[in-house]
This record gives sequence, C-alpha cells and structure tokens, in this order.
Amino acid sequence: MPRQPRSIDLTQVSEWNDGKVHRKQDCLAAEEPLEIRIGNEPLSVTMRTPGHDAELAAGFLFTEGLLQRREQILRLEENQGRSEANRGNLVRVELAPGFAPDPDKLRRNFFAASSCGICGKASIDSVRSTALHPPNPDFKISAQTLIALPDSLRKSQAVFGHTGALHAAALVDANGKLLVVREDIGRHNAVDKVIGWALLDNRIPLRDSILLVSGRGGFEIVQKAIVAGVPIVASVSAPSSLAVRLARELHLTLVGFLRDRRFVIYAGDERIGTGC
Amino acid sequence: MPRQPRSIDLTQVSEWNDGKVHRKQDCLAAEEPLEIRIGNEPLSVTMRTPGHDAELAAGFLFTEGLLQRREQILRLEENQGRSEANRGNLVRVELAPGFAPDPDKLRRNFFAASSCGICGKASIDSVRSTALHPPNPDFKISAQTLIALPDSLRKSQAVFGHTGALHAAALVDANGKLLVVREDIGRHNAVDKVIGWALLDNRIPLRDSILLVSGRGGFEIVQKAIVAGVPIVASVSAPSSLAVRLARELHLTLVGFLRDRRFVIYAGDERIGTGC
Repeated sequence: MPRQPRSIDLTQVSEWNDGKVHRKQDCLAAEEPLEIRIGNEPLSVTMRTPGHDAELAAGFLFTEGLLQRREQILRLEENQGRSEANRGNLVRVELAPGFAPDPDKLRRNFFAASSCGICGKASIDSVRSTALHPPNPDFKISAQTLIALPDSLRKSQAVFGHTGALHAAALVDANGKLLVVREDIGRHNAVDKVIGWALLDNRIPLRDSILLVSGRGGFEIVQKAIVAGVPIVASVSAPSSLAVRLARELHLTLVGFLRDRRFVIYAGDERIGTGC
Repeated sequence: MPRQPRSIDLTQVSEWNDGKVHRKQDCLAAEEPLEIRIGNEPLSVTMRTPGHDAELAAGFLFTEGLLQRREQILRLEENQGRSEANRGNLVRVELAPGFAPDPDKLRRNFFAASSCGICGKASIDSVRSTALHPPNPDFKISAQTLIALPDSLRKSQAVFGHTGALHAAALVDANGKLLVVREDIGRHNAVDKVIGWALLDNRIPLRDSILLVSGRGGFEIVQKAIVAGVPIVASVSAPSSLAVRLARELHLTLVGFLRDRRFVIYAGDERIGTGC
C-alpha cells in the first residue's frame, strides 16, 4: 500500500445534507506538534502540518530574530524523536561554533515594548529596530501579473483541494512565477516555511520577490516579510489595521482582496504598475 | 464627531478593478497588542482586536490552565496603560488572596509532553489530564437547529461585514439561541472572549452550550472547549486531524463545514438529532 502524504489524514465521517445522513471517507489536514531544539535545549513547540519541518525551523528562528544568516546554522536534523510515535516531530538545530543566540530572545520579543508601554507604535518600532534589509524601492509588478496569482496558487496547492483546511504561502518573482509554495494549518507556519526555504537556499534578502498568502494579512505576516527583505505582500483577504500601519511606516507594498480580477492597495502604490 | 468603535479603523486605499484605479475609504479590522499582567508581573502579550479585553484575559488564563474558577479572580482592571498611546492595551489581573498560580505554567504547557516525547497522543493526554468537566453526554441539538446557526451568527457579526477580516465565536443553547458573540482578528482570542464571558458570569462548566466558530476547527479550539466543559463544537470550515482525534478520545461532538444546509459530523454523532 502506498503511504499517504504526511500532510493528510483519512477518516470516516457522517455527512448530513438536507435531512439525509451518509457515511463517507474524508481527508483531514494533518496537525501535529513540532518541537524545535537548539542543540539539546527545547526552544518551542508549535502545532503545524508535517512536512518541510527543517524549513519551518529555519524560517521560525530567522523571522523571530534568533539568527540573521544562513551560515549561523551548522546543521538541521529532522526525525530525531525518541519513539515511533513522535518520530518526525522534532527538529534539532546545531548552530555554528561561536554563535550563541539568546533563547530568551523569544520571550523578550514579547516584552520589547514594555519599557515605554504596549501599543501599536511600540510594536512597529520593535520591527523597525530589527529590520536589516530595507524593502527594495525599485521592485515593481504589473497589475496584470498580480491578478493572475490566485489562480496559479490554487493550481499548485496539492493538499488544500482535498481538505479545505490549509493555508498557503508562496514566493513569486516579478513575472508571476511561483518560486516555492508551502501549505500549513497555521498561516504563520506556511510563511516561515517559504522564508526558511529562501534562507537555506541563500536567497535572503528577498529583494525581488512577492510574498503571496492565501488568507488574511495580519501584523505577524508583514513583520516576517520585512525581516526577510520582501518588498511586496499580497493576500487574497483583508489586512488588519496594524499590518497596514507597519507596511506604510516601513515602506512595504501591501495588497489585499486579491481575487476575481481585482485588488486593493493598502500601502506602497508605487510598486504596482496599474496600467493595462 | 462620534468616536468610531475601537474594533474598526478607517483608512484611504487604492482599489484596482479590471484596469481602473480609484481611491476610496476602507474599514480595517483593528489589531493592537494586549498585555496581560498578574499583579504587576507581565504574563503575556497577544495581538488582538480591542474590545472585551477583561473577558479575553479571563478566558485566556482559564483555557491555558492558570486558573480553574471564577473566585480565583479578585479583580480585573482594564485601561491601565501608563500613556495615552497604550491606554486600553493592558489588563491587570488581581488574584484572590492565597491563590498563586505558577506563571511558568504557560511555558510548561508547551513542554508538558517532553518527558515521553512530542506527538499527537501526548498532546491529547495533556488536555485529558487537565480537563475538569467531562462533556455532558445528555446534551443534544437537532440538525434543523444546527443548520440555522451560520445565518444567526452572520446577522450578529457587527464588525465582520465592514472589514471581512474578523473571526467570530459564539456560545449557543440547545434551541439555537446565541448567548454571546465575540469577534477578533485571532480565532483563539474570539474563543477566549466567549469563554471568559462565561467564566465571569459563573456559567462554567458550559454543560448545555455549543461553541460555534466562523473558521476552522483546530486542536487549540477543541482544547479550549474541553477545558470549559462544552459538549459540542461546530465550525463553518474544516477541522484538523488532531482536533478530530482529540474530540473522539474525550467524547466531544465535533461538527465541520456547517453551511448551505449541510454539515459533517467528525465525532460524537449521538448528540446530533439527525431526523427532520
């Protein structure tokens, strides 16, 4: 029997449809905890859809500010669980000799704003102070290329069609070519996976790429894009107030409601060629 | 000028529609950081949509296992920010004398499974060990009542219609009456707000309520329902594999794809009256 992809689980369910009930087999988006360790020290546990876990770990460490460059990672080991049950739910990160990030950084990020109080402005200042790569002012994409992206993304989403439960993130070039697509039950995980892919492939900063996401564009998504040096974020749904403020203050282009040959530009109009 | 609700921000945007661009005013779902303090100790910061912050703090502490009963909270103070900018982004929780939860509990929850490894089974066992209220085996709802819920929820979602960006959660009784509806940019926050409302109103365990959520049903949503003693969780979209396993093992009813006079039962069929 061929093994099913780890990202899908099959199960028996009851479907009720206008008074009639029938049993059927259903595909579920897989969700499992992933533990990330630095050496032998547990750093975090996140619920994610299995697959591309090394990229997820690399992207998470990078977008959370624990590391800044590919060379700071010596090795990434997947599949180090101690028993059959947890095999595949652990990534061990070995760092380059002499490089010792502070694991409390994760916790400190939370409280970076505390000295002057917690507010949207403090959150934006905190991203500004860690952004190493200002978004490329010369990168542009045409409106026609942009409106073709949702279709491209949908065609490349292997799992979503089966389960209806996965978020997708993609990196796209100026011609609308999808460089990498990753799916996950958590939108932030899908974004960490594509950025982790780029980090491991020595493509950071992503000066000439768009980050495309299947759902909403919140603060966290724009923050991750800024850390990776991405100049344009496009989502098929609505952004939040703080995502828009962050994009405007850090000169990122933010596009929302990208669907049905239509979109809304919330920040950075100058990177979108709006002619026909 | 009347103050706009804190849950909405207005902004100018450019809409591109099939070659034509026009400027318009757009409503955004508000997103701001909220800091929760136990006494004067910072406990966590979460990005959320402002509004019902005391409920959010109470629900968060309860569903994360830091407290178990209403009486353990002496006082909840909102609006304690030190400056104008962060006013309203802080909730201070004063606990009852003699009650001292371990703030490391938040961190320990993360690693509860570490002694036997990280896996789905360990995650489920961890919820099982903290679930105080077994889900009511006698609570039932009819299919006809269930299929009317998405419409009721939509009608009561004040903000969603304006922004397209908010998740909603509601508690519903056996007759389909919505007891409380809360909206938030984070689905887990919307759920914490309705459960926090119930805790502060001395309604825990929620033996005779349905938790209705506008989006997907992941592990975290089912976990929060179990902590609150809710017997049925219904979502308009798909659940994850681990949410289904958790619901089955802890005898919760889990309904998904509740829309267009149709739904799928993933666990606990016996609580749904499927006749007409």
